[in-house]
Amino acid sequence: MQSPVALIPQLAAHIVAAGGKRLRPLLTLAAAKLAGYRGGQRHVALAACVEFIHTATLLHDDVVDESALRRGQASANALFGNKPSVLVGDFLFARAFQVMVEDGSLEVLRILAGASATIAEGEVLQLITQNDTATTEDQYLAVIEGKTAALFAAATEVGAIVADCGAARQVALRAYGHNLGVAFQLIDDALDYSAAQEALGKTVGDDFREGKITLPVLLAFQRGDDAERVFWRRTLEERDQAEEDLPKAIALMQKHAAFTDTVLRARQYGQVALDALDVFPDSAERRALAGIVEFCISRAR
Amino acid sequence: MQSPVALIPQLAAHIVAAGGKRLRPLLTLAAAKLAGYRGGQRHVALAACVEFIHTATLLHDDVVDESALRRGQASANALFGNKPSVLVGDFLFARAFQVMVEDGSLEVLRILAGASATIAEGEVLQLITQNDTATTEDQYLAVIEGKTAALFAAATEVGAIVADCGAARQVALRAYGHNLGVAFQLIDDALDYSAAQEALGKTVGDDFREGKITLPVLLAFQRGDDAERVFWRRTLEERDQAEEDLPKAIALMQKHAAFTDTVLRARQYGQVALDALDVFPDSAERRALAGIVEFCISRAR
Repeated sequence: MQSPVALIPQLAAHIVAAGGKRLRPLLTLAAAKLAGYRGGQRHVALAACVEFIHTATLLHDDVVDESALRRGQASANALFGNKPSVLVGDFLFARAFQVMVEDGSLEVLRILAGASATIAEGEVLQLITQNDTATTEDQYLAVIEGKTAALFAAATEVGAIVADCGAARQVALRAYGHNLGVAFQLIDDALDYSAAQEALGKTVGDDFREGKITLPVLLAFQRGDDAERVFWRRTLEERDQAEEDLPKAIALMQKHAAFTDTVLRARQYGQVALDALDVFPDSAERRALAGIVEFCISRAR
Repeated sequence: MQSPVALIPQLAAHIVAAGGKRLRPLLTLAAAKLAGYRGGQRHVALAACVEFIHTATLLHDDVVDESALRRGQASANALFGNKPSVLVGDFLFARAFQVMVEDGSLEVLRILAGASATIAEGEVLQLITQNDTATTEDQYLAVIEGKTAALFAAATEVGAIVADCGAARQVALRAYGHNLGVAFQLIDDALDYSAAQEALGKTVGDDFREGKITLPVLLAFQRGDDAERVFWRRTLEERDQAEEDLPKAIALMQKHAAFTDTVLRARQYGQVALDALDVFPDSAERRALAGIVEFCISRAR
């Protein structure tokens, strides 16, 4: 994060100091260990690259979404303005590639450059589907595979690369990361309509206010009657919202089991992630990665 | 530029179709040829990477500067909104790195990742010095070396790399690009206060309205009396501007030879760029690169 331009480490330190779960770099570290990497420090540098790419996307997301909060604190754009947030995001992205070049693996560069392009595609697709209740589940899945699962999959695959563990285990770790990422985002999208969200220091209903079309909304919309669809179109497409609309949206989701079915779907992806770990014998690292699946899903109580 | 997410090629095509000089990729092509590269197509793919990185920074710059025009047409942010501009910029940046990975040279990746980080640092430094008449010439030079010269230097150095022409010629081509880049930006900054700018399809006074501290301003401020400094502080620091202030700023620059001395400074950097070409024997490519120096400087008539 260091730079002679002092605002860069200041802004970057703000978002890093705000905490977060640091799930993605943890995945790189744990995957490398599970795949048998011993002795070196390459996994640490590359875990930092993964987190830098994630941090860059958070900075840009908060500008794009005009978010005032990130990780329970004032967002970087709210505190420093949009301009430094865009530019420091660019800086962190470029620094991640510099660190990868120092590491020297073209395979790692291929994986993380590919993930970076896919994230941007997922984010643009999310913009297009926003405020559109005609969005299909396939489109929704393409959004979350791009904006979230791509970096989870890359994070674990990079761990496999540094361990040089062979194609079968590399594919397995990538599959674990990808399916965990989908499960993680499904739970995130469910949490936006749950009181459990507040316990995590985040506000409830952000997606609703922005008109983001997530699975809980899609399920409630599909299962709703004509009057309910008029409600969803008014609140999410026209973004004409009154104070009582968020509680009403949550009530409709409960009526149609949209929240519980989203969590169920996450559990299914989580199970696929767990199954992918079967190519590895039992170990502390395998149990740790299995525990991450349960941790991610149990956020939605 | 291709992507299944149709908005990405649409937005990217808009900025590409708007034209521009395509100076940076031309530098990569010409430098590769001058350095003896024959037969392959690597220089073409890498020239595209250079232009993608440049395009990504333009998209982000226009968001940061809230620009309505780019290359004489509606800017992407004005036409498509800020959100897609930020995200398509990220996409093009990631795609550039994907194409570099396909090319397979870690040295090229090192040079362009480094240039990308330096560009972001230069842009942040520009933000910090904006609206601050206490900015020094050294700080101004650091800004334009970062935001402009770094990519010019990388563009020509990448040409040297694909030609595998040896350290001395690589250093010479990098020096040519760097000094050309500084000259280019000095002329750009002078043009913002020149009627010649309108002939190039750009509006006069954009930097003045934004309070950007460029060399013409710095020279006029340093050479001005107290009353003139009050004028510069009001217009550039407080951004309290009336219609007659831009003509007055231009008149003060003429009074203090600030415009002509900025062009003179550009000529000096241009001469250093020309001198760097001396390690190469005379050829059509060397004359082409020498011609680019003259082309860049002659934009300020």
